Amino acid sequence: MYKLVLIRHGESTWNLENRFTGWTDVDLTPAGVEQAKSAGRLLHAEGYDFDLAFTSVLKRATRTLWHVLDEMDRTWLPVTHSWRLNERHYGALQGLNKAEMAKQYGDAQVLAWRRSYDTPPPALDAADPRSERGDRRYADLPAAEFPLTECLKDTVARVLPFWNEAMAPAIRAGQRVVVAAHGNSIRALVKYLDSVSESDIVGLNIPNGIPLVYELDAALQPLRHYYLGDAEAAARAAAAVAAQGRPAR
Amino acid sequence: MYKLVLIRHGESTWNLENRFTGWTDVDLTPAGVEQAKSAGRLLHAEGYDFDLAFTSVLKRATRTLWHVLDEMDRTWLPVTHSWRLNERHYGALQGLNKAEMAKQYGDAQVLAWRRSYDTPPPALDAADPRSERGDRRYADLPAAEFPLTECLKDTVARVLPFWNEAMAPAIRAGQRVVVAAHGNSIRALVKYLDSVSESDIVGLNIPNGIPLVYELDAALQPLRHYYLGDAEAAARAAAAVAAQGRPAR
Repeated sequence: MYKLVLIRHGESTWNLENRFTGWTDVDLTPAGVEQAKSAGRLLHAEGYDFDLAFTSVLKRATRTLWHVLDEMDRTWLPVTHSWRLNERHYGALQGLNKAEMAKQYGDAQVLAWRRSYDTPPPALDAADPRSERGDRRYADLPAAEFPLTECLKDTVARVLPFWNEAMAPAIRAGQRVVVAAHGNSIRALVKYLDSVSESDIVGLNIPNGIPLVYELDAALQPLRHYYLGDAEAAARAAAAVAAQGRPAR
Repeated sequence: MYKLVLIRHGESTWNLENRFTGWTDVDLTPAGVEQAKSAGRLLHAEGYDFDLAFTSVLKRATRTLWHVLDEMDRTWLPVTHSWRLNERHYGALQGLNKAEMAKQYGDAQVLAWRRSYDTPPPALDAADPRSERGDRRYADLPAAEFPLTECLKDTVARVLPFWNEAMAPAIRAGQRVVVAAHGNSIRALVKYLDSVSESDIVGLNIPNGIPLVYELDAALQPLRHYYLGDAEAAARAAAAVAAQGRPAR
């Protein structure tokens, strides 16, 4: 039996400001740092150990991973970064306030942007300074394939090659893998692993900084999954994520 | 022309306590963190950028690198860890106070342990809890080859394969390389690059947290080298390293 641990990054500055983040490279808040450290302490206390770590090229996930590894005394572990584990690209909404958009366009539209499986938000203009198409960290991503917006379906499509080519072979080889990633790249993995339907996956909320453990059989089919630590805390954290789209009171 | 940047980790807790460290995995002091950040800010301000980073499996070097990458907004860069970049193994002296050892054995003996090119300090017993022979981070190091003490000559001998097999090919391929390592693993590289004699290399002190830049020609022969930033500060920091063996006043 294999174990795979998925961790959504701790609270970011734009989680806190209730803004659409996507590929924008915002950092953790002090509370987010605390969530990351506490995930590391919990994994350590529960006797988890790893051989290999995967994360995105965004610093809120990398920093979460660094804090986890630090708390586990595993700062020397090999880490692979891939843009394929990035958050869903949020298109022209990146940087905008979720509650203000809800007031302007209505809850239904914002919910559709956030939760439709196959309708992406309006695309970013390629010339928009918010597009990071020229950034070196995306050097292996051809300009023509560089996303200017994504629906969850698009995110799933670009996460799965990374699962197949990097993660699954490592797990099959007996490497104990930890992944620090984002709400939607983790959703993409969960959808694939548990064969979640398109309509159910959009309602699934991944809490920040709480390790999600998958137990997998020899064929990498999930036997079961669970959040580490206090189950009620995990549920409250997931509900808080779900509430982010609602207009500010 | 290629550029290679070498950074000795910031001040560690045992630098501060004046104890022999070697392979003991002590952390940075707050001042050491500040040195690391300041190295990163300096590299960024001087327009340096990197494609690849190398460091040891010891956390004082890794943390130094993390702070450097963080200040340069390069948290996503690939990092390779190798025990071959570790500090010189200090044998049975690991954990002992440099000044107390000088009082007990005399300055000349301590200076010989610290500065002889080919005489190692007394070896650690393989059963000594200070030996980390079973540690997973050394899994690729056969037990028979696991060092229980090292002279600088031994350190040079295990650093050079890493230069030849990992660092030099990357530099030749055009990758801009930064290395966060230790006083003696950096000495080993400097000895090789500049063909420093055995008697001269033991007198060369590498200051903590000040980027040392090598400009190399197409054959990776050094054209020149220099410390970044304030030259006087680098000289003072190197002198402080040299003074560590002296008895406490």
